[in-house]
Amino acid sequence: MTMIKQLTIIGVGLIGGSLARALREAGVVNEIVGCGQDKDHLQQAIDLGVINKYETDVAKAVHGSDVVVVAVPVGAMESIFRQIKTAASAHTVITDVGSTKGSVIHAIRAAYGSVPASFVPGHPIAGTEKSGVTASFAGLFHYRRVVLTPLENTDKAAVTLVRKMWEATGAVVSQMDVKHHDDVLAATSHLPHLLAFALVDTLAALDEKAEIFQYAAGGFRDFTRIASSDPKMWHDICVNNRDAILQVLQRFQLDLEKLGKAIANNDSDYILDVFKRAKASRDQFSQ
Amino acid sequence: MTMIKQLTIIGVGLIGGSLARALREAGVVNEIVGCGQDKDHLQQAIDLGVINKYETDVAKAVHGSDVVVVAVPVGAMESIFRQIKTAASAHTVITDVGSTKGSVIHAIRAAYGSVPASFVPGHPIAGTEKSGVTASFAGLFHYRRVVLTPLENTDKAAVTLVRKMWEATGAVVSQMDVKHHDDVLAATSHLPHLLAFALVDTLAALDEKAEIFQYAAGGFRDFTRIASSDPKMWHDICVNNRDAILQVLQRFQLDLEKLGKAIANNDSDYILDVFKRAKASRDQFSQ
Repeated sequence: MTMIKQLTIIGVGLIGGSLARALREAGVVNEIVGCGQDKDHLQQAIDLGVINKYETDVAKAVHGSDVVVVAVPVGAMESIFRQIKTAASAHTVITDVGSTKGSVIHAIRAAYGSVPASFVPGHPIAGTEKSGVTASFAGLFHYRRVVLTPLENTDKAAVTLVRKMWEATGAVVSQMDVKHHDDVLAATSHLPHLLAFALVDTLAALDEKAEIFQYAAGGFRDFTRIASSDPKMWHDICVNNRDAILQVLQRFQLDLEKLGKAIANNDSDYILDVFKRAKASRDQFSQ
Repeated sequence: MTMIKQLTIIGVGLIGGSLARALREAGVVNEIVGCGQDKDHLQQAIDLGVINKYETDVAKAVHGSDVVVVAVPVGAMESIFRQIKTAASAHTVITDVGSTKGSVIHAIRAAYGSVPASFVPGHPIAGTEKSGVTASFAGLFHYRRVVLTPLENTDKAAVTLVRKMWEATGAVVSQMDVKHHDDVLAATSHLPHLLAFALVDTLAALDEKAEIFQYAAGGFRDFTRIASSDPKMWHDICVNNRDAILQVLQRFQLDLEKLGKAIANNDSDYILDVFKRAKASRDQFSQ
């Protein structure tokens, strides 16, 4: 059953491409227009059957669409919103997939003067360490969480449409306050990525470099997989959720310092307590 | 072709159990004697076809064996070595699977007075976050590294036998200096485990606890999987490879502090450089 006649996806990468595939598979969209800067990349998206056509001009891509999904790194959003504004009608529902909702709302306010009622801030908590349309797949959002963070003035019908769109991909949709979203994500996503990038960079700088990675096992592979994520995207997230990230980072640094001191002092009780508590928490969480 | 007539495995857990299964599957051992403190656990190992029989007394378990593998947490090794000494002949090859070779050599020296020529320090760099014989499987060591760290006086024939034993499990065996092994493992295994335990404990202590884990995605799952590892085993590793761990931990803490400052100062170049270098290093490493 058609839910969206024409959908524009700005940024046809891992997330945008997977959304397109999932909606097409669900049969809820007639026509998908891709938008980006790289024609070869967009042609590839057509060849892969991800989008129907493409435009490199945002205004042209948005023209005539019921829904516009902005799936570019959060640092590029303000410029995209300015271009959307010139072409979207008041009835065009606009949503995004950015990981830092405070900054995205700031960006659209800067572009529009105020946050339009037709804008539904959204964040699919899904992804892999890979990027680009070639890494996209229809099942990416199956049973994954999508968080919407509408404001008081956000149009209820627009929220419902965006919710149904994500539910059609197999995702579980919930709503949350903007700041709470940014705090939770800083802890569960942004900080782990920071640590993975930092750890791999520290180890790569050690003398034994070549050998170190050679003797790494499965635990290390899993632990550092997210350090293969897109640097630009994660740079943007750090800059755009700075305060929440720094807050949880500082807390982690203090805890790590205490653990280091306990190891230095052979404080077995302290070390065991931390490890046992962590294992108990992690075991509750699904594998 | 029989390589070992009777093998004793002290500590029939994930590693000891997997070694038994792998050698049995390879058909290179006639009889496997398990040893431990928990009769139910050992009976389970018999029921699962992992070992042929068991003894709870170390001296009895060792009696008549060609090879003795010590697969207990490193903190328990000295006591085990003292018991082995009372029963092993000079021809019994003794080896271990401990992650901290310096401390294991220290433990056997304390037990024997000097390190016997029949002792071959070994470390299979393999494992999962699970523990116990029920988690063991024959393929655990396939294409995994096993590092032997023999000393100058170690018997060459004993080293060859232990090497062949591990090769029969599908592992790739190499030799390394004791200190170098401990430095490399501190970086690639011990520090990542510390960070995973510390991160999960930090997050569990946050107010939003329940919700935080609920909104965690696949990246977080992979990143924190090793925080489900055995607390006692990892406590022992921290205590027994303290200096090497503290050295690389300190280096990481300094790097993390610099990255935090760069985020606080909106130093995009610095952040991007770290992330790009990390991604390049991680991408070279197999998935």
